[in-house]
Amino acid sequence: MSNKPSIPQGTRDFNALTLRRRNHILSTIKTVFELYGFQPLETPAMENLETLMGKYGEEGDKLIFKILNNGLNNEKNIEAAKAGFEKVLEGKNSSDITERALKYDLTIPFARYVAMNHTKLTFPFRRYQVQPVWRADRPQKGRYREFTQCDADIVGNPSLLSDGEFALIYDEVFNRLGLKEYELRINSRKILSALAAVCNAASQLVAITTAIDKLDKIGIEKVKAELAEKGLNGSQIALIEKYISISGSNEEKIAQLQTIIGNNAEGAAGIAEVTNVMNIAAGKNVVVDFTLARGLNYYTGIIYEAKGPAAVKMGSIGGGGRYDDLTGLFGVPGIPGVGISFGVDRIYDVLEELNLFPANLDVSTKAIFFNMGATESAFAFKVMQHLRNAGVAAILYHEEAKIAKQFSYAEKNNIPYAIIIGSKEIEQQYCQVKNLLTGEQHVVALENLVNFFNNL
Amino acid sequence: MSNKPSIPQGTRDFNALTLRRRNHILSTIKTVFELYGFQPLETPAMENLETLMGKYGEEGDKLIFKILNNGLNNEKNIEAAKAGFEKVLEGKNSSDITERALKYDLTIPFARYVAMNHTKLTFPFRRYQVQPVWRADRPQKGRYREFTQCDADIVGNPSLLSDGEFALIYDEVFNRLGLKEYELRINSRKILSALAAVCNAASQLVAITTAIDKLDKIGIEKVKAELAEKGLNGSQIALIEKYISISGSNEEKIAQLQTIIGNNAEGAAGIAEVTNVMNIAAGKNVVVDFTLARGLNYYTGIIYEAKGPAAVKMGSIGGGGRYDDLTGLFGVPGIPGVGISFGVDRIYDVLEELNLFPANLDVSTKAIFFNMGATESAFAFKVMQHLRNAGVAAILYHEEAKIAKQFSYAEKNNIPYAIIIGSKEIEQQYCQVKNLLTGEQHVVALENLVNFFNNL
Repeated sequence: MSNKPSIPQGTRDFNALTLRRRNHILSTIKTVFELYGFQPLETPAMENLETLMGKYGEEGDKLIFKILNNGLNNEKNIEAAKAGFEKVLEGKNSSDITERALKYDLTIPFARYVAMNHTKLTFPFRRYQVQPVWRADRPQKGRYREFTQCDADIVGNPSLLSDGEFALIYDEVFNRLGLKEYELRINSRKILSALAAVCNAASQLVAITTAIDKLDKIGIEKVKAELAEKGLNGSQIALIEKYISISGSNEEKIAQLQTIIGNNAEGAAGIAEVTNVMNIAAGKNVVVDFTLARGLNYYTGIIYEAKGPAAVKMGSIGGGGRYDDLTGLFGVPGIPGVGISFGVDRIYDVLEELNLFPANLDVSTKAIFFNMGATESAFAFKVMQHLRNAGVAAILYHEEAKIAKQFSYAEKNNIPYAIIIGSKEIEQQYCQVKNLLTGEQHVVALENLVNFFNNL
Repeated sequence: MSNKPSIPQGTRDFNALTLRRRNHILSTIKTVFELYGFQPLETPAMENLETLMGKYGEEGDKLIFKILNNGLNNEKNIEAAKAGFEKVLEGKNSSDITERALKYDLTIPFARYVAMNHTKLTFPFRRYQVQPVWRADRPQKGRYREFTQCDADIVGNPSLLSDGEFALIYDEVFNRLGLKEYELRINSRKILSALAAVCNAASQLVAITTAIDKLDKIGIEKVKAELAEKGLNGSQIALIEKYISISGSNEEKIAQLQTIIGNNAEGAAGIAEVTNVMNIAAGKNVVVDFTLARGLNYYTGIIYEAKGPAAVKMGSIGGGGRYDDLTGLFGVPGIPGVGISFGVDRIYDVLEELNLFPANLDVSTKAIFFNMGATESAFAFKVMQHLRNAGVAAILYHEEAKIAKQFSYAEKNNIPYAIIIGSKEIEQQYCQVKNLLTGEQHVVALENLVNFFNNL
């Protein structure tokens, strides 16, 4: 085959610099998760198809990458495969065609893991998980078919202290990454639910939530039009508009909300949840935002959404919330939880735009020994092994070549120091060390070379 | 759905302890790769199917996990899908059914990457790659359908110094992991090729190599029978038996081999390759083994195979070799290379059997604050934040409960210290710190608590 090689749409190769930058983000997040007592978990890329199907809505189901069963043309499979394919052509699934799929997120595999292992786990169970997921979405800027999710959850724990801990985790991670101007918006699903109740429109909760969720994108007039279309009357819409228009400091917002839903029990509980996080994360960048809805998902209490500095136009860089019953889907009810996620790809773009990646992330090889001939390079190889054994990453140029060519190789590979050992240097047991950035040159006795690098 | 949840055959969930142990292995390998100047690379889980097909032999092709195209039942796809499925039932591939597949190893995706980027890369290019791969193999002990490969290669470099560096990398990694009794067997493909030539059976090279490769498993008599079956005559088989029977020290083996193939130019080149590695890795656990063949793959020069200590019955825990033309498959010829791989799952099993994992790998959360009531735990929460901000991982028990229950939670989670703050402690600004392993108890002033943990 000599076709021009390529990779699938929406997937990426990561070179060294990109990986080191991604790893800067991932290791910062993991370090903070560990500080907060979370333990790592990894689940397979593949799940049984039935574990995933029906968990992400009809649209989500269509975006799951399914794996073709192997050996469909084996004699014993062929009839079943034919029948199975008829079902596929009707838009159904057939275990005779596909039994496995790539995971779509980390939450459902985690729920499956907890359900499978709930008798062995100690609750509350704090886990974090940093792994790729796959979605057959139409690729576009910032949206990939293979991307990394970064989740932490506490399950089996109704304590509201945890709600506050996640706000502190966001704060710690974003500060460590230099994103001091981040914003963490919070709300409670109970507040949205109470709003529907005080509107006498409890059955319209989904419609109300969906409309409010679009406020940022479509503006208040279109939200009102959508509510009217869904059958809400003038006074109901007026109340929702009053709710949406709440403004001021966090405390002022809470006071205004009190007047709308304070008498509703669920509303009061929601206000307590939001106030709790405000208190625990006092002084951090928490912004109460009653229009925050976080789509149509399984949250039942506090919800979070993190945004980068306003200077960078970028959607959410993190989000999460509290849910009542993660594992009920898998036959193990009554395990409540709360969790968050970081959007690694978007955080990468924000740090790049703001020039916040640490310098020299791409320097890992500290020195290159120039190749000055067969005898000299055999000698240099041994000196290099001393450096490597002392923890200094180094290489030897692979062939005798013009010095200019060796310099150019060092430069292209971001290697900061060149070490030159010729016959005179061998005789007198020293070497020339050249800083390739500054041009500075040092004469270093071989016995001091390890120290030279350790003291840089 | 309330079926009992499960995961696909041959895949695994990794809990915290297993992950920390795997990470001990992986980070040791990565650290050594970096010391030797290798740079990280990651490629997507999915490759275009045509990138993979035909690269692993007929058997390999069958073990590739293919991804079903999405939207087969869309009106515009349905006719093509039907025709494509007919081809699948004939054992062929159809891009109307599947265009993508999960990667089967790291080598072919790396070759594809180099071919795609060869104008931008600086050669020699040293890359390492640690990622999962997928094979639809029959699962059995030690063989998984999703497993991690750990490769390092230098491409665009004919220098034999690199051949020696890989022997040193194996030595460094295995020593760091405590596997001082490892064995690195080496041979050269050129020597096997020369053997076929001196037997006047150059066209039978594959048959000879395949038979010799089975020596360990089937013994000399069956190897001879297989060679006879393949049409080799008595004097040819006698020469091969003489070759197989070479024994003694590395130097003695080389001397015996000289008498068989020393006059063959390719044989002499092979002997030079093996001697080169012996010299560079003098004093390391290198064993010359002329029966080493490394299957039917693309190697053309030196080949390596690493084995664990003889005390543990386990196959190869690493292997690799030199190849002439990695990217020719993708239309970019003339890029030679050499590389190795570590078998992470088997290394894990060996370290476990020999009890070589460092103790306390599973301790990450250093302290648990006991929950002594609402006021006390609100206070403890603030003390905990001081610890976390100082880099000490800690949690607060989630609810007021009997002390025995809180102790039990700490124990099950391998948390070594409990911190108790009651009302008296709040008043006098100190806490009780209990070492849960020894039972030792300390009274520590709150202002000294960070120091207490930093000085442990």
